[in-house]
Amino acid sequence: MRYPNGKTYKKGEIKKRKTPSDISISSANRGMDLENDINESNDYYREKNIALIYKRPTPINIVKVDYSKGARITDAYFEKQSTTDYNGVYKGKYIDFEAKNTKSKTSFPLANITSHQIDHLKRVNEQGGIAFFIIGFETLNEIYLLDSSFVIYFYENGDRKSIPYEVFQKEGVLIKQGYHPRLYYIDAVEEKYFSK
Amino acid sequence: MRYPNGKTYKKGEIKKRKTPSDISISSANRGMDLENDINESNDYYREKNIALIYKRPTPINIVKVDYSKGARITDAYFEKQSTTDYNGVYKGKYIDFEAKNTKSKTSFPLANITSHQIDHLKRVNEQGGIAFFIIGFETLNEIYLLDSSFVIYFYENGDRKSIPYEVFQKEGVLIKQGYHPRLYYIDAVEEKYFSK
Repeated sequence: MRYPNGKTYKKGEIKKRKTPSDISISSANRGMDLENDINESNDYYREKNIALIYKRPTPINIVKVDYSKGARITDAYFEKQSTTDYNGVYKGKYIDFEAKNTKSKTSFPLANITSHQIDHLKRVNEQGGIAFFIIGFETLNEIYLLDSSFVIYFYENGDRKSIPYEVFQKEGVLIKQGYHPRLYYIDAVEEKYFSK
Repeated sequence: MRYPNGKTYKKGEIKKRKTPSDISISSANRGMDLENDINESNDYYREKNIALIYKRPTPINIVKVDYSKGARITDAYFEKQSTTDYNGVYKGKYIDFEAKNTKSKTSFPLANITSHQIDHLKRVNEQGGIAFFIIGFETLNEIYLLDSSFVIYFYENGDRKSIPYEVFQKEGVLIKQGYHPRLYYIDAVEEKYFSK
């Protein structure tokens, strides 16, 4: 299997897993609220002037507005996100990412990723932006940053249905969890994209 | 009056105005739909892989959702934008801007700019992003890019009510108008931020 970085993937080549002591606080017992954790982390990074990342609002298609009530929306529906959930700026660079959870221990299913999102990620890469996924393996209590090139690769090649867990271990960056911020995901961005 | 770039502003120091021949198509007779023109230009820049800029959706506060109708929103209202209207990526750099029209010939009023937006622009600058305003002087059929530092300056100093037209002529970049894209605003971004 050929990877975006040109390396060939072989089973057994897995990097040593980080030990539980690398994770500050275990959140195994309280379930994983990835969206909430990322929003909290973004608040932290914003307050500390470390990064400026916002969640994009879910696009809403407005059908009817009642102006007699001061522009009250009385009929509308949610639309599927055609881009990603988050974007912003870190050290002047454009940052763009999607966050998803899975209960699987063995792979991340790509069923919920749309072709519009893949198209968007490609365009971000073409523009020299930084595009990645934050994937939470709930059952394992592990959260990884994985560069978008791998997501694009697995979406477009092979069975197209999932990314094996081993790919996250080998090519992803394990995101340290803590209390405040909940996710040190900018550390992972720094390690992956800025420490060359 | 002290400017963000440290220069002192004097009346009469105005640069020669660009001539009407610099403007490909006159839109004087069809009014100015700045938002539509920017969206159309963004589509063009996206198709041509020149830049990837999106309009942020107007934030909506959802009060009630009817799940019996398949998640139909039955009560919601518009919220004030606390960031800016547009963001994205050009040549790897984070781009963030607000677009506004004015019918005034002499100044751009700051009444519709919120302190949250000023705060946001400062944070973008601190993160090394590129932040500016696109201001349309409808009556003059002129559209300028003006760096956010001037908007922040006039918001926080002096009478805080408006930015004189002369500042746009002297410190802004006149955006060329055309058919497709309607606004060559990335040319203005290139001139202002990338041609040093």
